[in-house]
Amino acid sequence: MTKRPTGRRPGDPDETKRAILDAARRTFATHGFDRATIRAIATEADVDPALIPHHFGNKRGLFVAAHELPADPVEMFARVAALPVAERGAAAARSYLQLFAGQDSTGLSLLRAAATDADAAVMLREFIDDTIIPAGLSVLEHSEIEGELRVALIASHLLGVAVARRIVGISPFVDRSLDDLVAALAPVIQRYIDAP
Amino acid sequence: MTKRPTGRRPGDPDETKRAILDAARRTFATHGFDRATIRAIATEADVDPALIPHHFGNKRGLFVAAHELPADPVEMFARVAALPVAERGAAAARSYLQLFAGQDSTGLSLLRAAATDADAAVMLREFIDDTIIPAGLSVLEHSEIEGELRVALIASHLLGVAVARRIVGISPFVDRSLDDLVAALAPVIQRYIDAP
Repeated sequence: MTKRPTGRRPGDPDETKRAILDAARRTFATHGFDRATIRAIATEADVDPALIPHHFGNKRGLFVAAHELPADPVEMFARVAALPVAERGAAAARSYLQLFAGQDSTGLSLLRAAATDADAAVMLREFIDDTIIPAGLSVLEHSEIEGELRVALIASHLLGVAVARRIVGISPFVDRSLDDLVAALAPVIQRYIDAP
Repeated sequence: MTKRPTGRRPGDPDETKRAILDAARRTFATHGFDRATIRAIATEADVDPALIPHHFGNKRGLFVAAHELPADPVEMFARVAALPVAERGAAAARSYLQLFAGQDSTGLSLLRAAATDADAAVMLREFIDDTIIPAGLSVLEHSEIEGELRVALIASHLLGVAVARRIVGISPFVDRSLDDLVAALAPVIQRYIDAP
C-alpha cells in the first residue's frame, strides 16, 4: 500500500475544488489579487498547480468562484458590449445591480469587508484595476477618450446605488423596483458610454 | 495638592467633551464603528472611559454627536441652491467629495460604520431620508418631477465615487485631482439637477 502525502483522496474532484477555493480565499485575502499566484494557491491547497486552470480557467475565474460572485464581471461586460450601443446603458445598469441583489449577496460582503479591512480593500482594488476596468472599455463607444475614467464613473455610480439601496437602504431606492431604477439610471450610464 | 493624571483641567466638561469628540472622529475614521471601542477612544482622548457613557450614553450616541458637528449637508445644499442653476452640478460634486477628503474624514467613518453595523446603517438611512433628501430638493430645477429619486441618484453617484476613490482606491480615481473628477462628474450631476 502506497503512502499518500495528504489526507485528501486523489480522484475526488469535488474535494479538490473545495480545497482550492478555501486556499484561494485565504491567499487572496492575505496577499491581494496581484500577488496571489496560482502556484501559491496550489501550494496552500496542497494540489498540483495544473488543477487550477483545469477547474477554474484562470486566476480571475478562481477569484469569481472563491467569492461566489453570481456572475463574472468580465463576461457581464462582454454580453453588454455585444448589444447595440443605444441599449448598453440600461443593460449595464441592470446587470450590475443584479450582482448585489440577493439577501446574502457576496458582492455586498466583499464591499463590507473592503470598507473595514485594508487587505480586503487592496484585494478588491487590484481585481477592479486589473480586470473590471480593462473589460469595461469594450462597452464604450469611444474608449480611446478617457476610457478608464468613464468605466470607473459607470462602476462607481452603480456601486453607489447598490450601497445606498442594499446597505444603507434609503427610501427613494428601496421603494422602487429594479426596473424603475434601471430606467432612471439608463440615460446617465448611456451618456458615459457614448458621449463624445 | 493632588496629582492630576493628565494635563486637562478636571471640572471643565466642555473641554473633556471636545477631546472625546475629536478622539472619536479619528478612531471611527481609522477603525470603523465596530472596532473603535469606547476604551480605545478614551485612551486616544486621554480621559477616564467612564466619562464617555456619562456624556454621550453609548458608542452610537458618541458617533452621532461626533458627526453632527463638522459636515452639515443641509447647509451645503443651501449654498449650492443659492448658485445659478447651471453651476450647481459642479458645486454639488465638489462639496460632496470634500466631505470625504481628509485622511480622518468623518464621511468615511460614517460609511465604514454603515457597511458593517446595522444600527449605524439605520442611523445613516434615517439621517439621509429625513434631512438630506428633503434638503437636496432645493438644488433641483424641477423638484416636482421625481425630485426625491433624482436627489438620491445624485447622492448615490457621488457616494460611489467617494467609496471607489477613498475606500477601494481604484486607479482611475486615485490618479486624478479633485478638480479633474469634479469636471468629469459635473455634466451628469447637472443632468439630474435640470433635466426635464
